[in-house]
This record gives sequence, structure tokens and C-alpha cells, in this order.
Amino acid sequence: MNKPSIPTLIFLNPKLNSMKINSYLFLSLFLISTTVLAQSAVREDSLVIKKIYNTALLNGKSYEWLEHLSNEIGGRLSGSLEAEKAIAYTEAELKKLGLDKVWLQPVMVPKWTRGIKEYAYIETAPGISSTVDICALGGSIATPDGGLKAEVVEVKNFEDLERLGRANIEGKIVFYNRPMQADLIRTFEAYGGCVNQRSSGAKEAVKYGAVGVIVRSMNLRQDDFPHTGNMNYGDTPVDQLIPACAISTNGANYLSNALKIKPDLKFYFKQTCRTYPDVQSYNVIGEITGSEFPDKFMVVGGHLDSWDLGDGSHDDGAGCVQSMEVLRLLKEIDYKPRHSLRVVLFMNEENGLRGGRKYAEEAKQKNETHVFALESDAGGFTPRGFSFDCDDANFKQIASWKPLFEPYYVHSFTRGGSGADIGPLKDEGIVLAGLRPDSQRYFDYHHAASDTFDAVNKRELELGGATMASLIYLMDKYGLVTK
Amino acid sequence: MNKPSIPTLIFLNPKLNSMKINSYLFLSLFLISTTVLAQSAVREDSLVIKKIYNTALLNGKSYEWLEHLSNEIGGRLSGSLEAEKAIAYTEAELKKLGLDKVWLQPVMVPKWTRGIKEYAYIETAPGISSTVDICALGGSIATPDGGLKAEVVEVKNFEDLERLGRANIEGKIVFYNRPMQADLIRTFEAYGGCVNQRSSGAKEAVKYGAVGVIVRSMNLRQDDFPHTGNMNYGDTPVDQLIPACAISTNGANYLSNALKIKPDLKFYFKQTCRTYPDVQSYNVIGEITGSEFPDKFMVVGGHLDSWDLGDGSHDDGAGCVQSMEVLRLLKEIDYKPRHSLRVVLFMNEENGLRGGRKYAEEAKQKNETHVFALESDAGGFTPRGFSFDCDDANFKQIASWKPLFEPYYVHSFTRGGSGADIGPLKDEGIVLAGLRPDSQRYFDYHHAASDTFDAVNKRELELGGATMASLIYLMDKYGLVTK
Repeated sequence: MNKPSIPTLIFLNPKLNSMKINSYLFLSLFLISTTVLAQSAVREDSLVIKKIYNTALLNGKSYEWLEHLSNEIGGRLSGSLEAEKAIAYTEAELKKLGLDKVWLQPVMVPKWTRGIKEYAYIETAPGISSTVDICALGGSIATPDGGLKAEVVEVKNFEDLERLGRANIEGKIVFYNRPMQADLIRTFEAYGGCVNQRSSGAKEAVKYGAVGVIVRSMNLRQDDFPHTGNMNYGDTPVDQLIPACAISTNGANYLSNALKIKPDLKFYFKQTCRTYPDVQSYNVIGEITGSEFPDKFMVVGGHLDSWDLGDGSHDDGAGCVQSMEVLRLLKEIDYKPRHSLRVVLFMNEENGLRGGRKYAEEAKQKNETHVFALESDAGGFTPRGFSFDCDDANFKQIASWKPLFEPYYVHSFTRGGSGADIGPLKDEGIVLAGLRPDSQRYFDYHHAASDTFDAVNKRELELGGATMASLIYLMDKYGLVTK
Repeated sequence: MNKPSIPTLIFLNPKLNSMKINSYLFLSLFLISTTVLAQSAVREDSLVIKKIYNTALLNGKSYEWLEHLSNEIGGRLSGSLEAEKAIAYTEAELKKLGLDKVWLQPVMVPKWTRGIKEYAYIETAPGISSTVDICALGGSIATPDGGLKAEVVEVKNFEDLERLGRANIEGKIVFYNRPMQADLIRTFEAYGGCVNQRSSGAKEAVKYGAVGVIVRSMNLRQDDFPHTGNMNYGDTPVDQLIPACAISTNGANYLSNALKIKPDLKFYFKQTCRTYPDVQSYNVIGEITGSEFPDKFMVVGGHLDSWDLGDGSHDDGAGCVQSMEVLRLLKEIDYKPRHSLRVVLFMNEENGLRGGRKYAEEAKQKNETHVFALESDAGGFTPRGFSFDCDDANFKQIASWKPLFEPYYVHSFTRGGSGADIGPLKDEGIVLAGLRPDSQRYFDYHHAASDTFDAVNKRELELGGATMASLIYLMDKYGLVTK
């Protein structure tokens, strides 16, 4: 729809054709032509992107989908009834979009259940106790039927365990109380600096004879929500496993202060969580087959499973509905992708990554060439940019698109990780990317009962989906830079 | 604290001093020297700014102040007891900071009270009615004692009034139902496109004989909160004033749909609001006197008054505590400003701007030279940048500081407006600026009962204060570019 570029007009002019065209003029014309063509492409791209954002904000579907996932279905722990319902719902919704294919990819997933609500108290003297808010960590064993009561030893890290030694730890509950670092601007960095307490706390403490583990919730706020999350026992022998729970930040501060006054206080907790044999589940996949490169795949996705305390609205209901929205938006504006575009709703990111692994494994078996994958798994907040895991040449091309995103206040294009589910697709020839929304509020909700639908703002969610669709459009249109 | 720059080292070296220094070398050294000095200044600035952010995030006071203003005091409408309490509280808190001066600047303000909770219903047939959520617009008169009941005519704008004419409007209530445009990325732009319905709707409708006005709330969400805000009757004769109220977005949709089915339905509303004679109030001012230019002033501020439906946490409790925090942070890191820095908590931005006008007026009378003013009045959300009202030379200098803000994800430096309260200071020699936080959620809360403390995230608020303090630091250190 663009007017012919200036150099074309010049060559169509017979007077100009009769000119003595020297190499200097040629070069000038070439440069002008390149510039004008580039400008017209930029104009076209910015118009397409404007259309994507307008459609998302005026006529978006993602918020309505999320409302159903969150409020009608709820938390979607792998292997749960809710996860099954979410698979059926999203498959049905994708089928309504008129994609070329929609299917379920079978994958076996772990099944862990929380059991009855956990209970804990701090006993400073016989008969004198205060309850605190805890939850079992995902993958933990239960306490004995009557609960577990023991003295507590507070540590900040694994070095503290070594320094204290078995003499000070044996028979006690280890309390990991290293808080997230509030002065880090990217809150995921602060999370990264704390999460080993949760993931490896039990297997490290058991080496010194600990009988249980309490972990300070990975939360930058002071509140009463315990935050769950995955942990693993590594190669700890089965008969030596110890139960592990998370305590709210308020509870952690209370416990830490109480220990200062009464170092021999006792902590009691009871949890009835349990691991079952693996069960059948599915990744949900929809595809628009590419017009030029049907055998080259671009993936956009999030994970459909969530923790069970809230309803998984930010983690990662948001990423799922945004990914579905990407394909819907491109269809809505009548864009025909050159590559095959797939939305993949991965199962079991939280406690196993089975869905992500399965998808990559099958892609390899079927010799499917994946050239680009984009994940949204950092909450449904205002999009700030993307992180890219790719080579220099592709990053250079992508960075050249930054001005197209500036009208939408999307400024940050960085090198770095992408997303857990698409990680297994990593290969030499692929560009991996992660949407990077504003991260300030994410850990207020992450893995906690506070991760609910009302914590998601409709516009912020929609802007994220539009930002993803715009990147997919550009990646599809320009393709990868091949060496 | 920086190492001596390279050129200094070269000149201190006797061997180099004996070199034949031609003009080319001189130029090179000059360029190197300038570059190195600039680099070292950048290094120093980035360290100071890092210290400001760290202090704000690890040891901030703004959230605690806001908690008091919001939860202990509440909505602070001009002339109310709450406004008086807020003046006393902030004055006392500023006095604790060890500033050089803290004082109250007297200013007379309008006093309008809402009265008892407003009540409205839609009557589709005698005895068949549904209540809807409304609130009086600020400055409106009351309805008659028994309320007002009339037919409704829905319009989108003032042109519709003209088109419909007196024949279709006389004796009816005019219902302005033009929604905010959701596809505008900057929500303030969408607000700007609607707000004349609220501010001038009554005075326009009365020209056609309307008996009352209902205005769709300026809210991008669908919910039940009516949003108040100021309106004025212009030069409408006192005996012709008509009452004006805001209706929630859900209520507006309901009314609009009901009108399609039953165009002659009746709308009833009752409000008992009232305007009193002006009362005494105050701007609250604190100052750190400048070490080099005590007679040149830089102002940072927000407005202490708010609407009365919520507790004014975002509008503009946030801006007040962030402005107080700017001076506290600079003291905390032991920065001695060259210019005199003032925090000004302006009274009566919402329904009169008397505080802003008074401050500028007195500054002029006292011949105080103001060189910079920064306002925060767009909510306590993640800071995205600033808007500057200044000349090219100063904007160029300010834009050169952008890289210093990038580590904090503050990317957007634009030309444009600043803030209502500092507007009256506008003069040739001054730079005016407004903090520009993320605007997506702002109109969920603006002027409504939902504008409460829990809607403010601590980190987002603190990042805003740190961003403001960083700009004030740079403006103070480098001063204005004078022609």
C-alpha cells in the first residue's frame, strides 16, 4: 500500500534515463533507494503493530480467558482435576479461533498433593504458643501424623550449616532466613539470590542431621502469605527425607525475633502432603501453518500448570492467555504468517518441566526445525521489554526494531535467559526470548494465595500480549539472520 | 574520590613534558582530558544515584508516611478537618528531618462538602427501579431536598447537545456517556479526551434547559466506583445552576442499555453537597538552603489535598511523600545542595489550585528566583520517566543524563507538561518537570473510593521517590544551561 519509492520514479522518467549516470550517482541512488525502502518498511511495520495494539486494547480476549482459568477453574497443579479442566478449556477456546490445527500432546507428569491445610506454631514455653502461617514446599514429604516439634536453628545460607556443624543442627529444624535483597531493581535477581534455600535447603540440612526445614518466603513484602515452590531432595536416601515448609515473611521475622529472646523455643508443624505415581497429562498446542515455510516453527507459550494456593493468575495464567492472544490477534488483523506459528501451553513447569522437555524431545524426533520461541512467564504486568538468548547477528537485527516498540513504552531489549519451558528447545539455530514485564509486584503474588485474578490489571495484561504479537510478527516477517 | 584523570598523569611525567607538543597532540590531549573528565563525572553521578536508590529501597520513609496520611487521616478535601490534620502531620514530619527551614504558607481555599451519601435509581416504570452508583461532582450544587427525577437524554459530546437542541433537552437530565479511549497507550491522553464532560458538562447542558447532569466516570475499567472530580458552572447565573453527578462505568452502561429499550425512563438522584465560604488553609514547605546559590530555588512537590471518596493515596498522597522523601534521601546520603531545595506540599490542587497560585505569587513578590520545579501527581506507580517543559538547550542537557537512569528502567524523557501546582511558576528562566509513572492503572483509582493505601506498592512508590531525587541531584549539580 506504499507509494513507489523515489528511485523507481527516477528510472521511469525518460529524461533521467538519458542522463550520464556515473558510479557516484549510482551509489547515491542505491543509498537513497535502500533508505526509502527501509523507511517504507518501518512505516508498514509500525502500522501493523499499531493495529495489533489497538485490537488487543479495544477487543482483547485474554482477560476473559484468564477470568475463566482463574475464577472458574482455579489453581492448576500438575495432575490435579483443575489442570485437566484447564487443558479441556484452553483446547476448546483454541479450536474456536479457526487455527489450522489444535491438539493435545501427551506427557506424564508428577502428582503431588498438599493435603489438609498446614498448621504451625512457635512454643516459647510449655503451653505458651503462637501460630504462624506456613505451607508445605512442593515435593516435600509430610510430617509424622502427629506433626513435628523440635528446636530451631536459624541460618542464612549453606555456609552457616557447615560452620555450625552437626553438633548444633542434629535433631533440630533448620530455619533458612535469608531475605530477598530489596535494593536490586530487577526483583528476579533478588529471587535468584534466595531460591536455593527453598530448592536445596532440605537436602543440605539433612546432611547435618536436621529433622525438618523452614524457609523464609521469597517475598519482598512483609505479609502473612507463605509462598510455596518446588524443592528436591537430590540423592538423599528415601528413609532420610525430612519435611520442608515455607513461612510467611511476617512469620519469619517473628520467629527470628523470638529465637533471639528464647533460643531453645520449639517449632511445631504439621503437613500431610504426598507424592503419587506419575499421571497422564498434556501440553495444549495450536498452530497456524506457515505460508512460505510450513516446516519452520515459531513458538509462543506459557505454562498451564500453576501452584495450588492461589489461582495462578500471574504465574502463569497470564502467560497462557497472552500466548493464545498472540495467534488470535494475528488472525484478527488478517496476517498470514510465513512460518508455522504455534502456541504451546506447557504442562508442569512448576514441579518437573515435563511439558517443556516433552515438546522439545518430540520436535527433535520429528525433525521439526524450530527457529524462534517466546515465553511469557514473569507475570501479567506492564511489558517493559524482552530478554534474548541468541547470537550477535540476530540480536543486532532484533535491536534494530526497538524504535517500533517505543510508542508502547517497551524499551528494554537485553541479552539473557528466556523461559524455562522453551529452554529445552535451545539449539544453535534458534532465537529464544522471554517477555519482561515490570517486575516490582511479581513476588507479592508468586506461588502464594495472593496470586489471584484481581491482582491482574486488564490493560497491563493486554499490552503484554500485544507486545508479544508484535515481536512474533517481526520475527516472522524478517526471519532469522543466518550466518 | 576518583583517581586523577589520564592527562593529568601525562603532564606530571617529566619525560612527556620535554616532548615537542604540536597542536595536534594538544587537541588530542584536550579531547582525551574532556572525555576522561566526563567519564569520571558519569562514574561519580552513577554512584550517587545508586546510593539514592539503595537508600530509598532499603531504608525508605515514604511508604510509612503514606500509610499515616491514608489510613490514619484519610481523604483530605480542601477545608476539611482531614486536610488540617495532614498539614500538621507533614509539617511535624518535615521538622524531624533536620531541614534548614520548615513553615506553613497561608492560603485561603474553597470549602465544598459532599453531605450524606448520594443516592440514585433508574425507574423504567412506576414502582420498578434499579439503584446505580453515583457521586456528586466536586463543586456541584445539591438536588432539591426530595431529589430530582426526570427523563434522560444521552449524548457523547457538546455537539450532540447542539444537534438535539432545546426541544429535546429542556426539562431532562443530560447523560454524558463518552468513554475513555482504551487504545491510547498513555491513559492521561484518554482522560484528556473525556474530561470536558465533567468539567463543563453542566454549564453547557444548562444552556439548553437541562435540569441535571450525569457524567460517565473517567475510568478504563468496568466497575461500580463513581469517580468524582471538579466541575464549574462558568458564568451560569446562580439561580440557573443544575446538579451534576458522576455514574460508575457499570452504571453508565446499564443506563445506556436501559435507554435503548425504554427511552422515556426516569432517572432519580439525590445529593446534599454544599459550598461554604472560603477557609484558611496552608501549603507546607521545607527547605535545605543552598551552599552556593541560596537565592536560587529548586522545588519538588505534590498536592496535599485530595478528593474525599477514597483516601487519596495515589492522588496525591504518593506525590507528597515522594517529595518529602527527596529531601530526606539527599540528607541521608549527605549531599549538600548548591541551590536551595524546597519541598512544597500544595493545598487545593483538586478544586481551585489556590496553593499553587499562592506559592508562585509570593515567590514573585519576594523576588525569589526559581530555576527548577518538579511535581509528582500521576500516582505512585513504577516510574517510567519525566516530562519537561523547558527550552531546547536545557532539554538537551537533561536528555544527556538518560543513560544514568537506564539501570533503573527509567527510559522516557519527553517534552510536554509538568504539573498543575508548579504551572504558575512558569517563566522564561525555569525548567518545569513532571514525574511520569506507568499510567495503566491510574484511572482505576483516580478520584474514586478505590484510591486507597492497599492500591500502592511500596517498591513502586520508593522507586518514584528515588528517581525524583536523582533528577534533583543532577539539576542541582549541573545547574541550568543559560543562554
